[in-house]
Amino acid sequence: MSLPTFDDVCRAQARIAPWIHRTPVLTSATFDHMTGAQLLFKCENFQKAGAFKSRGAVNAVFGLSEAEARRGVATHSSGNHGMALARAAACRGIVCTVVMPETAPQAKIDAVRGYGGEIVFCEPRNAARQQALDAVIAESGANFVPPYDDARVIAGQGSCAKELLEDVPDLDIVIAPVGGGGLISGTALSVRALSPATRVIAAEPANADDAKRSLIAGERLVEDAPNTIADGLKASLGELTWQFVSREIDDILLAEEDEIIEAMRLTWQRMKIIIEPSCAVPLAAILRHRDVFAGKRIGVILTGGNVDLQRLPWA
Amino acid sequence: MSLPTFDDVCRAQARIAPWIHRTPVLTSATFDHMTGAQLLFKCENFQKAGAFKSRGAVNAVFGLSEAEARRGVATHSSGNHGMALARAAACRGIVCTVVMPETAPQAKIDAVRGYGGEIVFCEPRNAARQQALDAVIAESGANFVPPYDDARVIAGQGSCAKELLEDVPDLDIVIAPVGGGGLISGTALSVRALSPATRVIAAEPANADDAKRSLIAGERLVEDAPNTIADGLKASLGELTWQFVSREIDDILLAEEDEIIEAMRLTWQRMKIIIEPSCAVPLAAILRHRDVFAGKRIGVILTGGNVDLQRLPWA
Repeated sequence: MSLPTFDDVCRAQARIAPWIHRTPVLTSATFDHMTGAQLLFKCENFQKAGAFKSRGAVNAVFGLSEAEARRGVATHSSGNHGMALARAAACRGIVCTVVMPETAPQAKIDAVRGYGGEIVFCEPRNAARQQALDAVIAESGANFVPPYDDARVIAGQGSCAKELLEDVPDLDIVIAPVGGGGLISGTALSVRALSPATRVIAAEPANADDAKRSLIAGERLVEDAPNTIADGLKASLGELTWQFVSREIDDILLAEEDEIIEAMRLTWQRMKIIIEPSCAVPLAAILRHRDVFAGKRIGVILTGGNVDLQRLPWA
Repeated sequence: MSLPTFDDVCRAQARIAPWIHRTPVLTSATFDHMTGAQLLFKCENFQKAGAFKSRGAVNAVFGLSEAEARRGVATHSSGNHGMALARAAACRGIVCTVVMPETAPQAKIDAVRGYGGEIVFCEPRNAARQQALDAVIAESGANFVPPYDDARVIAGQGSCAKELLEDVPDLDIVIAPVGGGGLISGTALSVRALSPATRVIAAEPANADDAKRSLIAGERLVEDAPNTIADGLKASLGELTWQFVSREIDDILLAEEDEIIEAMRLTWQRMKIIIEPSCAVPLAAILRHRDVFAGKRIGVILTGGNVDLQRLPWA
């Protein structure tokens, strides 16, 4: 597998433009005051299907040849990637199959079906998931679009930081969450190319800190059953994304569970926007590590806003 | 009391510009699909102090002479106007006293105090409220800034529709909620001046329909203890705002309580923005009266986003 380049990001940006939102950048006097920094929030919670995942999914789907596209796409996901891929496939008019654990929340199941995706349920174990996906691909010849460890997906996610830097240059730091690492890898690609002096910082739940531990160990470590409210960040780094995280990221900062929930609640209350727990991790990290950020101009990627409104973490 | 004019709106816009946000206009493919219309949402939920009320309050406070300003401002409010006035006074560095019922929610009390406002509590009856306010004014000489029936306040609120029409011209309809009528009166002023062919429609809770009944009766009727979740719309029209509602509004459409809650929930879920119940009434009215809006280009004023996140109406 070869690594994507900034050229791939540029091609992705042009390819996906008709199918995604160029999301706005919002500011907050409250948070600037609380942090002593200038925060510029790139609002991917307003993105199609509610998360930045639409970028990578659309890039992968619309990068297929006609012959490939006819066989459809498939993935495994219990979260935003499955929704985003189902929507991207619907945009191109092709079939999408999502392998999901039987235990997936009904809201996510409904969302994938709402975008026209087909669901294959499996037992909630990695081996069962792979087996189910292999069976789908063997039968249909569908193209597998992985949630993060994929050059097309990383390039697509990189378009987010590219837009951010086009709209608000002169950033001292760009911060984004790290789970599987697709977003932070694409972010590093764009920031290094467009604004080499800007630092790239990843934010990670302390309860799912495989990326931080990998960086310290100097080798890719895998998280075993992490327990965090930031359910979009439970995945461990992949082979490709480890290349970016190990070489191109300036630091990884952690946030505890109560800090993540409080950052999420504050964002709802003060910015009047809906963000999901995973999306709150960068702000939680900023509030925890104020000395790193004070006096700086910071791009914060808000990753998504898909929340079960019946079950809020502070209720 | 003389009625404000569009010139007053223009002066208000210039006066308040340094102290308020020029709020963004958002769109939603989901709601366009659901309504068959093109909806352009003016996001006053992102306004300073969380609601359009900051416009009228800032206009009133910064329109005071130096001598007047030294005596401070006062009002009665258990909601967004009190917060907005406290913040506006803080911007000018003057004292603000807010008369609030003892039964006011703690969140509103904290918010007024957070902006530096002083609170005088009274029994939750209109007579007690007026008595308490009169006492404050007699003692301090404070300038009373009414929540809606005031030329300075109406002119300030009118700047919202003026911005909307500057950013998105060619609207067929502008819709805003009506409670005391300050916003809809200012909206009518701006729309009539800038886009005479555009219809102005007010949306009102069916459970607090004094404006609708007044329009039918041809005389100003007062609501007696209305019971609606849209707590910002419980007030009845005033003498000034009745002049606008009776002459300048094309129609008033009602929405039921369950429709208001569902419109609020849908907006959170699909647009990923926080709006309060009163703010959801126009969308609820659009969804109920689809035939009025289908095929049209509609400006929807989203009025505010101050919600107690611990107590959601659908939980």
